[in-house]
Amino acid sequence: MLSEFDLIKQYFQRQAPRRAVLGIGDDCALLAPSPGMQMAISCDMLVEGRHFFAGADARMLGHKALAVNLSDLAAMGATPRAFTLALSLPSAERAWLEGFSAGLFALADAHQCELIGGDTTRGPLNICITVFGEVAPGRALRRDAARAGDDIWISGTLGDARLALAGYRDELALDAGQLAAAAVRMHAPTPRVALGMALSAHAGAHAAIDISDGLVGDLGHILAASGVGATLAVDALPAGPVLATQPTALKRRFCAAGGDDYELCFTAPASQRAAVMAAAAQAGTPVTRAGVIEAAAGLRLVDAAGAALALALAGFDHFSGD
Amino acid sequence: MLSEFDLIKQYFQRQAPRRAVLGIGDDCALLAPSPGMQMAISCDMLVEGRHFFAGADARMLGHKALAVNLSDLAAMGATPRAFTLALSLPSAERAWLEGFSAGLFALADAHQCELIGGDTTRGPLNICITVFGEVAPGRALRRDAARAGDDIWISGTLGDARLALAGYRDELALDAGQLAAAAVRMHAPTPRVALGMALSAHAGAHAAIDISDGLVGDLGHILAASGVGATLAVDALPAGPVLATQPTALKRRFCAAGGDDYELCFTAPASQRAAVMAAAAQAGTPVTRAGVIEAAAGLRLVDAAGAALALALAGFDHFSGD
Repeated sequence: MLSEFDLIKQYFQRQAPRRAVLGIGDDCALLAPSPGMQMAISCDMLVEGRHFFAGADARMLGHKALAVNLSDLAAMGATPRAFTLALSLPSAERAWLEGFSAGLFALADAHQCELIGGDTTRGPLNICITVFGEVAPGRALRRDAARAGDDIWISGTLGDARLALAGYRDELALDAGQLAAAAVRMHAPTPRVALGMALSAHAGAHAAIDISDGLVGDLGHILAASGVGATLAVDALPAGPVLATQPTALKRRFCAAGGDDYELCFTAPASQRAAVMAAAAQAGTPVTRAGVIEAAAGLRLVDAAGAALALALAGFDHFSGD
Repeated sequence: MLSEFDLIKQYFQRQAPRRAVLGIGDDCALLAPSPGMQMAISCDMLVEGRHFFAGADARMLGHKALAVNLSDLAAMGATPRAFTLALSLPSAERAWLEGFSAGLFALADAHQCELIGGDTTRGPLNICITVFGEVAPGRALRRDAARAGDDIWISGTLGDARLALAGYRDELALDAGQLAAAAVRMHAPTPRVALGMALSAHAGAHAAIDISDGLVGDLGHILAASGVGATLAVDALPAGPVLATQPTALKRRFCAAGGDDYELCFTAPASQRAAVMAAAAQAGTPVTRAGVIEAAAGLRLVDAAGAALALALAGFDHFSGD
């Protein structure tokens, strides 16, 4: 059994800090914010059996734990800088720590986001990451900034993560290839960091949110915060490649309220369409226009012909009875 | 059962943010650092059955969860500004949430430290707080800054928290009044924020650490990081008022390696004694001089007559076999 201090040193303490003034190993880390920039801060806690299966692959878990936090920075248009990691583990197993730290640092390095501190303890498996980014004053993509007339845009594709969950749960039959392809979206989401930064910097985008609990629920947060409504063209939503092969009813449901997508839903004035497309191209992330913000409250779901759709949907809520 | 969003709103979302640019309710909080200041960041995770008993008083737990984080800011000499809270709860119980949030916010308000974001989920009880403070460049009290010839100072008193634990565990007999008095130190530690700030600002202090795992272990981190040794006068250590009534052997053991003290251990040149005493008076926190930093590696424990003491001590390690 490793001691706590050996464990931290071996798997999480790397070379001297690069971006932080002072990294792991003191009572606090020290970070020098860039002059004039604001700090964007987000925090997500992942619990075994709730956010991931017991026995989940450690490397993918390391990736996902940071990815969901980077996705929050992306939704603000912030540039990642650093993160802290608090980890509760039933035991200090080398194989698990090797995999987890490898997945974590691969993604962290890809975004030049430095681990600057944290905590480890023994207990039920729980991963809590707090992430720090920077954004210029007035440039953050806030939930309360949607305006009537804005287009509603979606990055990447939706629903494959939810489809994989349905496969694991035997809610429907997927062949092994389909399940494996969809499962990548569930286990290794891609935070849309470059897109968020480009939208904030160049594209005149208004509001943004990351889609973690299902599009309808997350878009609902934008509508509520902005005091507006919307019409969403459900059949225009970009279904993931595996979901795209499924029946229309399932496609609609998992696109509109799948959960675990970690795509961005954002709004921008119609006058900015070319700028949005340019930002997407710069970030290498496809975007799809799928609705419009309206003054009238409420979210109206429509099909390809513009007819009202009644879908039984619910956002994911960690404390509702599921 | 409350929904997650109702829960956050009712118990943790307060009036408009006061210090943050943007508080709870978006993908990220936004914090505007004071120009030129560095950000001190620390993170502590508290797990039921590990850091507190199952069924622990919710109000005291709210206090303690933030106190242990503020104690880390104190040990850097940083001024508290804000924190995030991630909470995993088996269920959303109103009575627990009321108590927990009351204890949390009472301490937060006392230090003008604002809750700016976080996460809630269902799962085994786990409280993870990340705290943000500010410190002027070059003013942080780092672990690696102790120099041979420095005095070793201790704030407040030591050992009563460990004594309470011994009482709960029936390791020794305490009467109800003694146990209650000692238990306050275990359940409701006082982070030495004002002292840390005063030491950083005025007193020429070198190194500091907060005593969470026992003095000998935590002082050991200063010695290792600074590449120095020390002699510690064990009988000069300030025993807590309940521990002070106990036999000498117990007093020595619980002062030197009690744990859960959340006092500061700091070093300062002998030339700064008056400045240290002035800083302590300004902060309203007593301090005691109990040793000296030396060039020779190792920690030497001595009694009141200066004779070597051999105590069987161990710092608290969450992954060693206890």
